[in-house]
Amino acid sequence: LNHQLTQLPTTIFTLMSALAAEHGAINLGQGFPDMEGPAHLVEVAAQALQDGRNQYAPLTGLPELREAVARSNARFYGLEIDPSREVIVTSGATEGLASSLAALLNPGDEVVIIEPAYDTYLPMIRLLGAVPKLVRLTPPEWSLPRDALAAAFGPKTKAIILNSPMNPVGKVFSQEELQFIAGLVEQHDVYALCDEVYEHLTFDAPHIPLMTLPGMRERCIRIGSAGKSFSMTGWKVGYITAPVALATVIAKAHQNLAFSTAPNLQRAVAAGLDQDAAYFETLASEMQIRRDILASGLNEMGFSVLPCDGTYFLTADIRGVGEMVTGAETDLEWSRRMTIEAGVTVIPVSAFYDPTGPEAPSHLVRFAFCKRPVVLEQALTRLRDRI
Amino acid sequence: LNHQLTQLPTTIFTLMSALAAEHGAINLGQGFPDMEGPAHLVEVAAQALQDGRNQYAPLTGLPELREAVARSNARFYGLEIDPSREVIVTSGATEGLASSLAALLNPGDEVVIIEPAYDTYLPMIRLLGAVPKLVRLTPPEWSLPRDALAAAFGPKTKAIILNSPMNPVGKVFSQEELQFIAGLVEQHDVYALCDEVYEHLTFDAPHIPLMTLPGMRERCIRIGSAGKSFSMTGWKVGYITAPVALATVIAKAHQNLAFSTAPNLQRAVAAGLDQDAAYFETLASEMQIRRDILASGLNEMGFSVLPCDGTYFLTADIRGVGEMVTGAETDLEWSRRMTIEAGVTVIPVSAFYDPTGPEAPSHLVRFAFCKRPVVLEQALTRLRDRI
Ligand SMILES: CSCCC(=O)C(=O)O
Ligand SMILES: CSCCC(=O)C(=O)O
Repeated sequence: LNHQLTQLPTTIFTLMSALAAEHGAINLGQGFPDMEGPAHLVEVAAQALQDGRNQYAPLTGLPELREAVARSNARFYGLEIDPSREVIVTSGATEGLASSLAALLNPGDEVVIIEPAYDTYLPMIRLLGAVPKLVRLTPPEWSLPRDALAAAFGPKTKAIILNSPMNPVGKVFSQEELQFIAGLVEQHDVYALCDEVYEHLTFDAPHIPLMTLPGMRERCIRIGSAGKSFSMTGWKVGYITAPVALATVIAKAHQNLAFSTAPNLQRAVAAGLDQDAAYFETLASEMQIRRDILASGLNEMGFSVLPCDGTYFLTADIRGVGEMVTGAETDLEWSRRMTIEAGVTVIPVSAFYDPTGPEAPSHLVRFAFCKRPVVLEQALTRLRDRI
Repeated sequence: LNHQLTQLPTTIFTLMSALAAEHGAINLGQGFPDMEGPAHLVEVAAQALQDGRNQYAPLTGLPELREAVARSNARFYGLEIDPSREVIVTSGATEGLASSLAALLNPGDEVVIIEPAYDTYLPMIRLLGAVPKLVRLTPPEWSLPRDALAAAFGPKTKAIILNSPMNPVGKVFSQEELQFIAGLVEQHDVYALCDEVYEHLTFDAPHIPLMTLPGMRERCIRIGSAGKSFSMTGWKVGYITAPVALATVIAKAHQNLAFSTAPNLQRAVAAGLDQDAAYFETLASEMQIRRDILASGLNEMGFSVLPCDGTYFLTADIRGVGEMVTGAETDLEWSRRMTIEAGVTVIPVSAFYDPTGPEAPSHLVRFAFCKRPVVLEQALTRLRDRI
């Protein structure tokens, strides 16, 4: 059987969610909201089912969704996108990432990845016979080591994956950082695969798509997610924006990996993208309130909380916090024990590092704050009681 | 960009559906029913949306759907399947095929494929760096050339893909043919990837999963499709049944290609699988009526219709049928002209052959008969008027 996949552990999200369920823990692990998205979008999806829209959608998506994606690019970022040739609807952002990587890479190509990295990047790259070149952000600021990043690019580089706002660390790349990355992309004549699923979930920092920087329009693939933007992670509808030359090849990958996506959900997502500005502002501001509740609660308990300007997640340093740390040599062990002993589940940050690479930091865990404030308070109480 | 995908033409289904739309043709090309599936399943899907089941489903699928898949395997085929470890729900059978191939293959492995073959098999195999070994069925009986099949297996063979009931030719492999294939699978110690999406759409022949043959339980991956079994091709819900050792690795591929599938649709598919025998009998018998209408109409017009015991499709020989053939040197050209001049769209069978292989037959086209009888009659009238 496939060597890459055989070696791969079960995803940490599934492992920790199962452990949470087993121990009745509050699950601040896997990133999904505990409140449903807008009821009127659910109605659109239900109505579309009943309208008899249940046969194959077009390969690249319903025209109405592709047009809504193009409008959303124009409205939020001033990007002019051709909905008929530059948008591809996918079965979730995960499939969008897989299709984009399949389109970009030939065996032996190198891809620059910034660690800690979302957990499908490395396996997909290796499955395609390509080679990841890893560069680590530096905690506690999660700062970008520019020299190391520049050194990771070489003659075999085909692309960089840029995840901003970034899971698991909540970093939103700044204009200056993006300019530096754009310079490398241009200098080495490569592409950027921009995982921007948290584009509408930023707090103190504006989200700037790399694609909006000079010279980047033809080099970037931008991936968005209905799950994250409309709080319906189960729907698994993603959307890719890419220049025609790339979109054409990505569509062929998508044709073979999934072909198309449920039309009723696509229709609801189109309605979601066309919501007014207030929706998107409220989405972010309510998430910011949740981040603040969790961050200040953790700080008060003695955790050192790392900066977080976006996503569903923040990271915290577990060293020296109460007795919980006793006997827990690693972040994974700490996360297991916290689930079992305190009834709160988190994700060890080391799970986002290449298991075959140099030793990962083992003093950091990721908390998801995309939960109702009362749930976050309850989790904080449980932690406080235990440590 | 990826060499395999760059070379790949846009799928014939999309090309011909676009041409059909452009010319207002009756689309007997892409295989989708023109009637919706059971209304009570639509209700279940709509209700599940409203019940707040819109966050991530488990990676391998909702327990209720995995259990329904296991029950269905027991009921129809006497197969005992562990729903917790031997079933994986996928984002359509296409994703199921991609995930299964990713799990099975390492670069350089060989896969035996029977031509004419469904159009994602070859690109996926090549994308994974593996090598297809092609064996052609012999028209007009679409018979299996046993010596050629045996010769296609060798020391590098990892698997065979067996599509029965078979798209595009409507062949249902017989007990004897399956025994012969099982013998080769066992002798060469390989796996069989069984694309059985048309399992409930057979007419005169019983569908026998290869997995039910002696020695095959641990060697087969069986793929089913809600789209085909419940006439909701847009839903894109597939299900894989495989022995634990294989299912574990397929789940890891699925984790990286799609992760999970919309829970509301999964719930409706579970209800679909649990329908009584009458549903499945009616599905097949109504499709058989459609096949008969189309086959006898085409025969009367002078087409020679090849045998068809299952699927949505039949193939017909276009040689010597009326003036339509004049100037149409290939089945593709004939299909285009029939769309434009007669207003009926079909799929050229040559599209199901490796474009880099020896010359394909160019005298056969595929008609989809998964349409209302009145539509089939109308298509026949249009053809009669033109030829
Ligand atoms: C696809 S399950 C993981 C969800 C997620 O994005 C996360 O928790 O990081
Ligand atoms: C996925 S589009 C093709 C549908 C189909 O199975 C066919 O027409 O052969």
